[in-house]
Amino acid sequence: MTVDSHHPRPVILGQNQYGKAENRVVRITRDGDTHHIKDLNVSVALSGDMDDVHYSGSNANVLPTDTTKNTVYAFAKEHGIESAEQFGIHLARHFVTGQEPIHQARIRIEEYAWERIETSDSNSGLNGADEVKHSFVRRGQETRVAQITFDGEKWQVISGLKDLTVMNSTNSEFWGYVKDKYTTLPESYDRILATEVSAKWRYSWSSDEERMPNWDTSYAQAKKHMLQAFAETYSLSLQQSLYQMGSRIINSLGEIDEIRFSLPNKHHFLVDLEPFGLKNDTAEGAVYFAADRPYGLIEATVLRDGVEPQIPVDTTNL
Amino acid sequence: MTVDSHHPRPVILGQNQYGKAENRVVRITRDGDTHHIKDLNVSVALSGDMDDVHYSGSNANVLPTDTTKNTVYAFAKEHGIESAEQFGIHLARHFVTGQEPIHQARIRIEEYAWERIETSDSNSGLNGADEVKHSFVRRGQETRVAQITFDGEKWQVISGLKDLTVMNSTNSEFWGYVKDKYTTLPESYDRILATEVSAKWRYSWSSDEERMPNWDTSYAQAKKHMLQAFAETYSLSLQQSLYQMGSRIINSLGEIDEIRFSLPNKHHFLVDLEPFGLKNDTAEGAVYFAADRPYGLIEATVLRDGVEPQIPVDTTNL
Amino acid sequence: MTVDSHHPRPVILGQNQYGKAENRVVRITRDGDTHHIKDLNVSVALSGDMDDVHYSGSNANVLPTDTTKNTVYAFAKEHGIESAEQFGIHLARHFVTGQEPIHQARIRIEEYAWERIETSDSNSGLNGADEVKHSFVRRGQETRVAQITFDGEKWQVISGLKDLTVMNSTNSEFWGYVKDKYTTLPESYDRILATEVSAKWRYSWSSDEERMPNWDTSYAQAKKHMLQAFAETYSLSLQQSLYQMGSRIINSLGEIDEIRFSLPNKHHFLVDLEPFGLKNDTAEGAVYFAADRPYGLIEATVLRDGVEPQIPVDTTNL
Amino acid sequence: MTVDSHHPRPVILGQNQYGKAENRVVRITRDGDTHHIKDLNVSVALSGDMDDVHYSGSNANVLPTDTTKNTVYAFAKEHGIESAEQFGIHLARHFVTGQEPIHQARIRIEEYAWERIETSDSNSGLNGADEVKHSFVRRGQETRVAQITFDGEKWQVISGLKDLTVMNSTNSEFWGYVKDKYTTLPESYDRILATEVSAKWRYSWSSDEERMPNWDTSYAQAKKHMLQAFAETYSLSLQQSLYQMGSRIINSLGEIDEIRFSLPNKHHFLVDLEPFGLKNDTAEGAVYFAADRPYGLIEATVLRDGVEPQIPVDTTNL
Repeated sequence: MTVDSHHPRPVILGQNQYGKAENRVVRITRDGDTHHIKDLNVSVALSGDMDDVHYSGSNANVLPTDTTKNTVYAFAKEHGIESAEQFGIHLARHFVTGQEPIHQARIRIEEYAWERIETSDSNSGLNGADEVKHSFVRRGQETRVAQITFDGEKWQVISGLKDLTVMNSTNSEFWGYVKDKYTTLPESYDRILATEVSAKWRYSWSSDEERMPNWDTSYAQAKKHMLQAFAETYSLSLQQSLYQMGSRIINSLGEIDEIRFSLPNKHHFLVDLEPFGLKNDTAEGAVYFAADRPYGLIEATVLRDGVEPQIPVDTTNL
Repeated sequence: MTVDSHHPRPVILGQNQYGKAENRVVRITRDGDTHHIKDLNVSVALSGDMDDVHYSGSNANVLPTDTTKNTVYAFAKEHGIESAEQFGIHLARHFVTGQEPIHQARIRIEEYAWERIETSDSNSGLNGADEVKHSFVRRGQETRVAQITFDGEKWQVISGLKDLTVMNSTNSEFWGYVKDKYTTLPESYDRILATEVSAKWRYSWSSDEERMPNWDTSYAQAKKHMLQAFAETYSLSLQQSLYQMGSRIINSLGEIDEIRFSLPNKHHFLVDLEPFGLKNDTAEGAVYFAADRPYGLIEATVLRDGVEPQIPVDTTNL
Repeated sequence: MTVDSHHPRPVILGQNQYGKAENRVVRITRDGDTHHIKDLNVSVALSGDMDDVHYSGSNANVLPTDTTKNTVYAFAKEHGIESAEQFGIHLARHFVTGQEPIHQARIRIEEYAWERIETSDSNSGLNGADEVKHSFVRRGQETRVAQITFDGEKWQVISGLKDLTVMNSTNSEFWGYVKDKYTTLPESYDRILATEVSAKWRYSWSSDEERMPNWDTSYAQAKKHMLQAFAETYSLSLQQSLYQMGSRIINSLGEIDEIRFSLPNKHHFLVDLEPFGLKNDTAEGAVYFAADRPYGLIEATVLRDGVEPQIPVDTTNL
Repeated sequence: MTVDSHHPRPVILGQNQYGKAENRVVRITRDGDTHHIKDLNVSVALSGDMDDVHYSGSNANVLPTDTTKNTVYAFAKEHGIESAEQFGIHLARHFVTGQEPIHQARIRIEEYAWERIETSDSNSGLNGADEVKHSFVRRGQETRVAQITFDGEKWQVISGLKDLTVMNSTNSEFWGYVKDKYTTLPESYDRILATEVSAKWRYSWSSDEERMPNWDTSYAQAKKHMLQAFAETYSLSLQQSLYQMGSRIINSLGEIDEIRFSLPNKHHFLVDLEPFGLKNDTAEGAVYFAADRPYGLIEATVLRDGVEPQIPVDTTNL
């Protein structure tokens, strides 16, 4: 930070970063007739010795954002895309070690999953055995996210997911809460619990000296544990479910130290059908109004005892 | 249509319709401990003898949109939701036969699919056998749509889907096209073909006298045939793939007479990596830029010979 | 339409169209130091003799969508952009007269308005008089739309707007409606009436022989009359307000023959504050919950007596 | 933070917060026949002694999110809405002082501006003088935002705006930057500079003892200075414009200590029209392609010398 000498009342430049956001890169690899696809949205943010470009407009230390875009595409060819995390590590290392004024690089990646289209030989005049190998349908469930940060020495890798909507149609209650003069909510002993999971977990891996996790295996395991913990928790509050989801991941996956959840409570209100002479009873199967806004929003960090929390509290989606 | 007598230069009321749109209804049914879920977004549009409400504001013929909303929720309890189409048929019949001034009802429905969360007994202190039965994760792939129209005599059922993104990573070419003074596109002999399918198909069923199709089976078959035709077509143009998708449905499913597609060409441009000394060759697996806008938009109706097309050309998504 | 001879059960190609959608074009013109801006989103849809490309994949009649994109940008330079409508007329004429297989062109345009940033000399070391002339802030209110269709002989021009949100905080009632067994809505004698206007009006102009309207003047007049009619109508139903908005335009603007509205009723529900000992009375100024879904949806065509309606009933936004 | 004794490998609860998000509240006040409108989207986040609800599901310390929603609506009636900031201060104080387990409250507010519809007496049979006083059209430009945080002692107020799109059609250059092996961008000496401003500024006011700023006046001044600085800066980089926008606010408004910008570079690429024999020269007025993704993203904090930065670096929009 540097004093701006051009103004009578001094003004300071604080934290700053720049880069090209949302580079949409698709990488096809061919293994004989069998094709594989990686579909990413990559955002680059660089920071370092950037005072001059803010104070005077001198771009002498500025690698253009257009160049960071080109690098993403070139690296997808040169290094391939083994996983979102590994690809981010290649990019971050390149920017920090390749340009002296750049002291830190943060790569954010969204990944979209595809599955193969199943074809049937009987419907096809072609050789059915080949043709399925290059045809895909977008899976459409959660979006996988990753954030890789490197300052030339230490690595920080945060992975996660968003847009994963889950529901328990029973085994959820809500009662025994504080009641003040503005409280009108009736207690509930059998309600729907639904949320759209946004989760980010941080790996303990932080140095090239350490053994790197298997990013894809860890992702699959973390998602599985999270879903199972949600399903298997008899829930007295969404906070309790959140904690169970987080602690099961921390307890099951030694490579993960910390996880942050943002869980909107997707309210499903039991519709009052009594005016129409109908009993809308959960025990018999009921009818709900799925509300949009407002919604409860439950956010918390769950972490391994003894580690320092590092995931920011109110970040944008990675 | 009636002349508006209050104005010197006569003005006429034309086609009009009204109702409550986007009623979000979730219906849980319990089969012992096993729960089932139907998750719909239902829009009601009614028309009929509605001149007065436009000319004078008299609501004497107007069933409130709030009542149409109530009816959606009450019917979900009274009749259950066997399928989107069957639910729409119940509603449309009710409005047209129940209110003399209402001459036509059009019900539009979006349906969101859920699948069960797989749990593992080993990770759970609970009885694993039960607990999976009420836990769901939203599938997240295509949105199923349906439109049911009834005028008191004839039915029209249009079903379909949207948001289904598919890709062939090879077996697509584009060449031999017209070249005018504004043409710069190079011909391509191996390109990615990707689109986000929006499709609406019309059933021939139109009367209570006829045997009704099995809506769920037909939907599953139509989706399967569409995906397979896309995958199995060696494509010289997206139009050719569209026609193959449509004709395979018409040929395979006797109950469907007509299908309308809106297929955005989701361009994946081969990135020019030559400035970086890299060869970006499709045969070896290549790197693409997935573009947002602009996009080619290919739209067409495919129909059984001899039937009159009825699906409107530029409708909003059902 | 042609029989597809390759299939045992004949299948027919119906209406079809193609082109490049959402070409984002910004045109700056300089009048000395004063700059002007036109900011459009242009979509091209062509139809004609296109059977072969669907049946066999032959592109011999296909002008690439990429070429239609190039044409949009080239025409913005060659002809300038006088108005969205005039620009669409240039494009449609070009495609239909320039390519024999193309029998009809439909150009859809969205236009985004900008206003100048007001600067103050006192705060600036520059010559304040010049600098305002090239600085703009996006207006951000409604989106202007236009659709131009040409078949080689007749023109159809539909203009309009969307995303224009209006509210009357009083002078709206709703009572005297039909009550059936599902009706619970209480009557209201003082409610908020709010909607997000989507309107499309059709000009009678249809031939090069006729005198063309002044598109920009007509647009400004139509918007003004619509807003005033909404504000000045003491409303007993949203349908009544709709009709007043439409008839005022038809009566005031001789060049417009027909107008179609799609008006979602943006419900503002009076909040029940009695549990907290508060009276939430409209007469004293009240507190409302602005709801998202569901919403009433009121749609109608208003037209000059004697003309045939041409605006489709359920079109996508132009 | 407390050790979770139920697990062999201890897991810790970190930062957590909860509340009802996106309460849409509209407040009409009547001053005789003249109505005024406040239109807010209010999100409540509370934190404090909340370990038990996460560990055991006990809600004994939990004020329901439904109650926080009720409070928003009740306060809109009891206290009125003088400004977004003042309304947030009422709410935050209430939650922290009213509930012992709640140690901190953070209120986030979006505000949507409306302007009056101009009516003309001549077109109206009513008394023109009255009727304009209750009719509004949503302004539609920027969204005003505010975040109020209170821990029982200290206040933090961050205000700002988002969705404000600005453009300079000249007086922007970009050259003299770093060139590495992935750099292909040509230098530019006359380009469009456009961005969609997201800005958040922090007031120095932090205690009930201090004199509170006039929130509405400060907002209007900050917006004005920001727009003028953007318009009046001859820009060699978007970073330079950002710093000018921030420093002008800090220098002009003594009550603001810090401002954070997130400025996407909305690229407008000069279209290559040479293949069509056209010269697309900026000096004569040119044609641009307005790109969506990827985009440069420039983010920085500007602050008064000597103050500690407090605005988080990667927050979600307030």
